Amino acid sequence: MPTQPNNSHLPFGDHKNAPWYGKDIISVKQFSREDLEYIFAVAHEMHVMVDHVGTFDLLKGKILASLFYEPSTRTSSSFTAAMERLGGSVIPINEVKYSSVSKGESLLDTVRTLECYADVIVIRHPEVGSAAQAAKAARKPVINAGDGIGEHPTQALLDAFTIKEELGHLDGLTVTLLGDLKHGRTVHSLARLLSLYKVKLNYVAPEILRMPAELIDELKAKGVEQTEYTTLDQALPQTDVLYVTRVQKERFTDEAVYESVKGAYVIDPKVMKAARERMIVMHPLPRVGEISPEFDDDPRAAYFRQMEYGLYVRMALLAMVLGKA
Amino acid sequence: MPTQPNNSHLPFGDHKNAPWYGKDIISVKQFSREDLEYIFAVAHEMHVMVDHVGTFDLLKGKILASLFYEPSTRTSSSFTAAMERLGGSVIPINEVKYSSVSKGESLLDTVRTLECYADVIVIRHPEVGSAAQAAKAARKPVINAGDGIGEHPTQALLDAFTIKEELGHLDGLTVTLLGDLKHGRTVHSLARLLSLYKVKLNYVAPEILRMPAELIDELKAKGVEQTEYTTLDQALPQTDVLYVTRVQKERFTDEAVYESVKGAYVIDPKVMKAARERMIVMHPLPRVGEISPEFDDDPRAAYFRQMEYGLYVRMALLAMVLGKA
Amino acid sequence: MPTQPNNSHLPFGDHKNAPWYGKDIISVKQFSREDLEYIFAVAHEMHVMVDHVGTFDLLKGKILASLFYEPSTRTSSSFTAAMERLGGSVIPINEVKYSSVSKGESLLDTVRTLECYADVIVIRHPEVGSAAQAAKAARKPVINAGDGIGEHPTQALLDAFTIKEELGHLDGLTVTLLGDLKHGRTVHSLARLLSLYKVKLNYVAPEILRMPAELIDELKAKGVEQTEYTTLDQALPQTDVLYVTRVQKERFTDEAVYESVKGAYVIDPKVMKAARERMIVMHPLPRVGEISPEFDDDPRAAYFRQMEYGLYVRMALLAMVLGKA
Repeated sequence: MPTQPNNSHLPFGDHKNAPWYGKDIISVKQFSREDLEYIFAVAHEMHVMVDHVGTFDLLKGKILASLFYEPSTRTSSSFTAAMERLGGSVIPINEVKYSSVSKGESLLDTVRTLECYADVIVIRHPEVGSAAQAAKAARKPVINAGDGIGEHPTQALLDAFTIKEELGHLDGLTVTLLGDLKHGRTVHSLARLLSLYKVKLNYVAPEILRMPAELIDELKAKGVEQTEYTTLDQALPQTDVLYVTRVQKERFTDEAVYESVKGAYVIDPKVMKAARERMIVMHPLPRVGEISPEFDDDPRAAYFRQMEYGLYVRMALLAMVLGKA
Repeated sequence: MPTQPNNSHLPFGDHKNAPWYGKDIISVKQFSREDLEYIFAVAHEMHVMVDHVGTFDLLKGKILASLFYEPSTRTSSSFTAAMERLGGSVIPINEVKYSSVSKGESLLDTVRTLECYADVIVIRHPEVGSAAQAAKAARKPVINAGDGIGEHPTQALLDAFTIKEELGHLDGLTVTLLGDLKHGRTVHSLARLLSLYKVKLNYVAPEILRMPAELIDELKAKGVEQTEYTTLDQALPQTDVLYVTRVQKERFTDEAVYESVKGAYVIDPKVMKAARERMIVMHPLPRVGEISPEFDDDPRAAYFRQMEYGLYVRMALLAMVLGKA
Repeated sequence: MPTQPNNSHLPFGDHKNAPWYGKDIISVKQFSREDLEYIFAVAHEMHVMVDHVGTFDLLKGKILASLFYEPSTRTSSSFTAAMERLGGSVIPINEVKYSSVSKGESLLDTVRTLECYADVIVIRHPEVGSAAQAAKAARKPVINAGDGIGEHPTQALLDAFTIKEELGHLDGLTVTLLGDLKHGRTVHSLARLLSLYKVKLNYVAPEILRMPAELIDELKAKGVEQTEYTTLDQALPQTDVLYVTRVQKERFTDEAVYESVKGAYVIDPKVMKAARERMIVMHPLPRVGEISPEFDDDPRAAYFRQMEYGLYVRMALLAMVLGKA
């Protein structure tokens, strides 16, 4: 949103002085610790409301344009559900080939067209920086639902919110990130958010998929204690949060190396015997073998509850940027 | 649904003691005659309500996840309309390639994710048994909208409801099933449902597309009177319900055989001169030549009304499993 | 709609005597000047209501089947938003391959099925005359959202409404149509609508893309003053409305000819120095280079506002054919 938005089309009843009214959600870098606390408080309220009444009409009459240039069932379903649980409506635009982009229209023209119809735009696009560009062009608030290898801020927010709701606090926790730490935007964004708290981070990854040195330096400068491992056994017993991501075979040029390491990154009931009784295992899903379904019934398996927390975070963000929270 | 569902997310106002609350709709085999009478009564009520008010807010605030791994405009549109006519919302997930299934996610993880967002899941999937598996994994109710060559129970229910609404009763009727009786899950499921009533069944099919012997034996054991024909002429005059299905050319290895029989399975005004004045012609649609459009204006042509009855049956099932009927 | 529609499924509260109740919107040829004035008045009311309350429940409980056999993000999003801003619901059917058309079902059977579920049908289909056929088969109102190279009446209506809202009136204006005037159904339909007013039309096109002689004759017979140009410079200074369309390279067999003319049909701030201060530039979008983004901030650039006027026109049409305006 430019500084002087054209407000002529805003309905009555918007709290135009609400702190997040009209803001864009583009990057985890935009949030302070106070911002996170506020988002968590609103998301918690959403959780309570959904538990009690299922759905309520906070955003009745509001319309979300859900613009997905890439497939993502989970993220698009979660935003759709968030809008519907708040009484709002959705314009689903799910396919690039169906978008006028296939006729050569620019992303910015598409966004400027959609804001004629909708009150808020959620966008997923394969190019880094696309959401920021869209936000700059649009008068209405834009939420980044993933811009390629760039950011996916609502995923990081729901990950942090999951930890808060499951364990009660973030300060003082030991969070172990496991798997492909080189390419995963999810773990990078989460690590940045967690650096706003007093956490200890463990990185467990094969040699070729280590956390980027630049990110380690960035967090070190913020005073975050970080330790790297190539196997889980040393890190697991002290871990409060084990965040698992996938180790993709395609990342390895030498298949023998892949075969030799992959077993070290699979979570199952046997491995988890070495973990604390009160801790949680998270995963952004989809999983493809890195967590055994046999572990699903363990109370520490938080990955499906994590999906649910995502609903509350997205409800909170939609309500906030529409001036209703 | 497992026996002890986690009810923490249920909104106020659900009639948790309603008889169908939380149940899955997976197979026609799960229904007793009493069940059918109950479904028909609720569906009839839906019909009356739609006639009078068009739409009403029985399921306001409820969300349906409509998960279609295979295309089916009619079935998915019907469920969407059913939910919307009851004031509820829909999360449409229409494309496999758009589903995280394309990233390798298992059906069960997808279902467990979607139930974090939605109150009920409708699923169509090409694999036999997929809906039953999904229902076992899910805490929320699951409705089978077709699992490959397995079952399509809501189609069978709407077929039986159509007969009930059009002719007033099922007992005592002669129902003639015409076309490809070997492969059609539609006619198999309908025949099973009808076996709960005192009906006489005629099967009219080319030799290579006869009703499977196992199914004939199964129904015989239940006391159903069944007669097989290869042409319609003998069966038609006594028929109360003529259920037409498609005879696909691809089923025949010898094209000459196909050409010689196909004409015997086409319904048009001339053929229908031999039928009763008070009877109905049904078809699950789409049709491709097996019923002449010239017959559409005949009052006995019930196939478009059948689509409409499908809406009422699906409204009834959604309301029932959500504890509202 | 046939003359005696089956009204048994109409909800209470419909104004069955409303002048447009149950009508189809198929062609610009069906409108008189009085019709346009009425549509513009209702659309203006919609604009005022959206400005004041964003959304309102005029069509609460009504369902739109949005049947797109061809991609068109803008048009389908606009109809979806129109229905949702009026409190109604949408059944989106966006993909031919997902439609039962892919199983060989005829358009008419699809329409007759959908009207069992929905209250109004919007259809976009590649074949000329398809919408008219669908309307003939359907009991419920049908709105043509583009039938191939045939018509796209709601585009023409929103174009005319844009002129009315931006400049206050249509009589007395000079409208210059620029670009490919031979193939563009948009400009043909708009020219026909404008012929109901006292306008002067300028046609600016390369020699091989001139306005069809038949259409020029048709409008001449109605008393419209028309002038043809191959370049914009002479026409621009007197122009009140400059309607820009794309000149596609593929239309030219001789690439040298394309390269020699294309520059003459690009609008940018420099070209626009020769235009009036009070005039507007329109474009149906998407644009691919024919209007420079540098012109977007000029108050005369009306093409994004044009998208917004489209919302109001479609809200008006939906309300009208559903008997609510």
